[in-house]
Amino acid sequence: MEFKVNDIAMILNGTVEGDGEIIIHNISKIDDGVPGTLTFLSNPAYIKYIYSTRASAVIVSTDFVPEGALSCTLIRVNDPYTALAELLKMYQQLKPARSGIEQPSFVSSSARIGEDIYIGAFAYISDSVIIGNNVSIYPHVFIGDNVFIGDNTTIYAGVKIYADCKIGSDCILHSGAVIGADGFGFAPNAEGPFSKIVQVGNVILEDMVEVGANTCVDRATMGSTIVHRGVKLDNLIQIAHNVEIGENTVMAGHSGVAGSSKVGRNCMIGAQVGISGHLKVGDNVKIGGQAGVMSNIADNSTIIGSPVQDHKDFMRCMAIFRRLPQMSGDISDLKKWMKQSEQK
Amino acid sequence: MEFKVNDIAMILNGTVEGDGEIIIHNISKIDDGVPGTLTFLSNPAYIKYIYSTRASAVIVSTDFVPEGALSCTLIRVNDPYTALAELLKMYQQLKPARSGIEQPSFVSSSARIGEDIYIGAFAYISDSVIIGNNVSIYPHVFIGDNVFIGDNTTIYAGVKIYADCKIGSDCILHSGAVIGADGFGFAPNAEGPFSKIVQVGNVILEDMVEVGANTCVDRATMGSTIVHRGVKLDNLIQIAHNVEIGENTVMAGHSGVAGSSKVGRNCMIGAQVGISGHLKVGDNVKIGGQAGVMSNIADNSTIIGSPVQDHKDFMRCMAIFRRLPQMSGDISDLKKWMKQSEQK
Amino acid sequence: MEFKVNDIAMILNGTVEGDGEIIIHNISKIDDGVPGTLTFLSNPAYIKYIYSTRASAVIVSTDFVPEGALSCTLIRVNDPYTALAELLKMYQQLKPARSGIEQPSFVSSSARIGEDIYIGAFAYISDSVIIGNNVSIYPHVFIGDNVFIGDNTTIYAGVKIYADCKIGSDCILHSGAVIGADGFGFAPNAEGPFSKIVQVGNVILEDMVEVGANTCVDRATMGSTIVHRGVKLDNLIQIAHNVEIGENTVMAGHSGVAGSSKVGRNCMIGAQVGISGHLKVGDNVKIGGQAGVMSNIADNSTIIGSPVQDHKDFMRCMAIFRRLPQMSGDISDLKKWMKQSEQK
Repeated sequence: MEFKVNDIAMILNGTVEGDGEIIIHNISKIDDGVPGTLTFLSNPAYIKYIYSTRASAVIVSTDFVPEGALSCTLIRVNDPYTALAELLKMYQQLKPARSGIEQPSFVSSSARIGEDIYIGAFAYISDSVIIGNNVSIYPHVFIGDNVFIGDNTTIYAGVKIYADCKIGSDCILHSGAVIGADGFGFAPNAEGPFSKIVQVGNVILEDMVEVGANTCVDRATMGSTIVHRGVKLDNLIQIAHNVEIGENTVMAGHSGVAGSSKVGRNCMIGAQVGISGHLKVGDNVKIGGQAGVMSNIADNSTIIGSPVQDHKDFMRCMAIFRRLPQMSGDISDLKKWMKQSEQK
Repeated sequence: MEFKVNDIAMILNGTVEGDGEIIIHNISKIDDGVPGTLTFLSNPAYIKYIYSTRASAVIVSTDFVPEGALSCTLIRVNDPYTALAELLKMYQQLKPARSGIEQPSFVSSSARIGEDIYIGAFAYISDSVIIGNNVSIYPHVFIGDNVFIGDNTTIYAGVKIYADCKIGSDCILHSGAVIGADGFGFAPNAEGPFSKIVQVGNVILEDMVEVGANTCVDRATMGSTIVHRGVKLDNLIQIAHNVEIGENTVMAGHSGVAGSSKVGRNCMIGAQVGISGHLKVGDNVKIGGQAGVMSNIADNSTIIGSPVQDHKDFMRCMAIFRRLPQMSGDISDLKKWMKQSEQK
Repeated sequence: MEFKVNDIAMILNGTVEGDGEIIIHNISKIDDGVPGTLTFLSNPAYIKYIYSTRASAVIVSTDFVPEGALSCTLIRVNDPYTALAELLKMYQQLKPARSGIEQPSFVSSSARIGEDIYIGAFAYISDSVIIGNNVSIYPHVFIGDNVFIGDNTTIYAGVKIYADCKIGSDCILHSGAVIGADGFGFAPNAEGPFSKIVQVGNVILEDMVEVGANTCVDRATMGSTIVHRGVKLDNLIQIAHNVEIGENTVMAGHSGVAGSSKVGRNCMIGAQVGISGHLKVGDNVKIGGQAGVMSNIADNSTIIGSPVQDHKDFMRCMAIFRRLPQMSGDISDLKKWMKQSEQK
């Protein structure tokens, strides 16, 4: 793929400073750009690299004022990051899309499949499955009985979806994701092993949900585990049975939500966070990495720690935690002094 | 599937209060029941929902005394939770079971396969494998050489079992579980990369073990990594080489046990817990979420924290941790006062 | 496989004490050895077992001096652990290797495949893939377009490698590993769901890298996520987009490195460690289990805690943390005393 800088600027509704006839054939990072590539400058921490980058062109903000000589062509736009995102999207769309039904694959005769779809070799589609239009199902995907999959959804190689689950439109499920495995439900027994509580519910992923690689969303005991519209789950996350994750909430890798907890909308949840069962986390909550949530959390909270507390309070307490040896010494001194004073 | 309330009550050995002729066609949660469904009341926190539930019938305890008007039929039983578990089990057994050997699948001519089994398309069964009766092997399962699988075990789509491992009877392995990958064993080298210690042992899962989605149990360096009878492992758990997990112990998601540690019987291990290598955790130990176990633990302990301490002690310490800024201020005041006193 | 003790000693360049004609047919651990097996003694904590082991022969150090009667034959070598590692390696090499291309598998006509390779049934190899010599690709492996795989690499069942990634020589990828899934990149939106930032980069695993079961290495937004030569990753690890892991660094299970962070060479990273994004961790850094790294780390540091601090400092602070209730009491006493003193 090759484009002139002028053509890219036109697409991005930007203006060119420098040689607009240069040919661009790839995208690079500003700190390791090579000739023939286009890069961008959005984070101020990276401004220093623009004076030495070997990339041929750089997308910058309309109000960027260089403080040194530049050897690259500039494309000025209102918001370089958004412009880049658009460009990356176009770049991907130029790649040839997979299509058709490869053989050998296994598609039940009772499955209903939409148009313009891709089903890779070794994919398995069970009875009574319904698949919308423009869906991509990569090799080694397993789709259980009665599963519904909406339009424009991409399911990468090796995803497993158990029976009765519903996947919305415009979703992306990455390799190794497991949707609808049994919730972890057992009843203690007077004697011997726990009894399994059969999990008869399902999982609902609404539209525009992205599920990272090897992330697990368990089916409900009864009813549904629900991941609402626009939620983005990173890799290796655990969403337990009967959990509900609110619209547009994002969760980073290795986080987990235990059974029956409800997380609100627009939350940002860091990596390796644990949320205990049967809790309610409000809307717009920010949770720092490795936090342990063991109680309900009010809307708009910013929390961290295990168990969690307000973010600023935690940082204050941690700063003192690190001075504990000195504090302990101070107390010893004070006690000694008190003893001496009393003996006088 | 449709049943009269009277029929269900008879199966559960319960008594009916209200209209026993109502037809039930599904199971629901009490807080989002719909007409035509059956629900249950076990956790006292949910009692309030019984007065407004739209479910047609509710399983309650024999000693439940309503404090308001009820529009649903009651089925009274001794233990509603156990009754529900039985009912869910029956519900599942009514679903048609998968059976037969689908094509294309790959079954070595030296494998010995029992009766009444299901082998899904794209399943791979290697040389000298022995599979018992009434076993279900879903699509995309890989079973390595010399693996043994006991009767009535279910292996869901995409499970990978390396050579020489032994899986007991009545086990359930969920999608993405990996049994018998190499233990993480390397020897430092005078120069350059670590040398791999070849892992020649295996994994033994005894009877009635359940392994969650994407959980890993590594093979032993020599000998066996052993998960004893009745152990239940949640999703995304890591069991390292030469570990032993005692009978009926349950572990929640994202927990890990490092090499050669032994965990006792009837333990309850929370989510995101880490247990270091070469340790011994006793029987009946309860470990809170996110705990870090770096020493041996006595039988019957209840512990939390990283590194762990007694649960009550930890809670006491954490309460004071949150008051550290005030404590630090107090000490400053005391020091100032001491200084002033000395100068008098 | 059967060998005389004398033969094994010759291979290991060791000397025999006792009956060298005994036949060995397996390897065992010293604490559960059985007749006909060979074991080893390296860790001093296990010396006590040598007097009671039922193993027929034990590899010991040249300077081992028994303090009791031994019923086993000894093989004396300079370094028992290294000798064992060699022996295990030979043991494995005696096993028959998988070879050939099994059917049904899916290999694109544009893929170039080396010699002496194994491609298992249900493996999927996409367009323009290049695979070196002596490579093993187990069943259910998916390899995307343009992927390169170097010589002598083993890819176990069910590994998924997305398009454009490069895997070096002498690598081992365990089941369920996902290489090259999209980085977790989203741009906030004025209204509604986040916008996906298309991830057009790739993943590079250099030579001699081992990747554990169900571990994920995400592709870069632009450029490459790089895992350098000799890195060993345990199971269930998350390496985010644009991360770089330096040569010979080892990471234990459940650890994660967030976007764009660079970890140095020869680091040892414990289990369940989290490293935040855009950080630099130096060379030879040791990080304790469950640590949370939220700032740059200097070369040769030994750290632990969340957020991390120097290991010894942390241990000192934690010791005092556990005495906080007493400290709090002391402060109360001091305050009371101060008040009384002032009132005098």
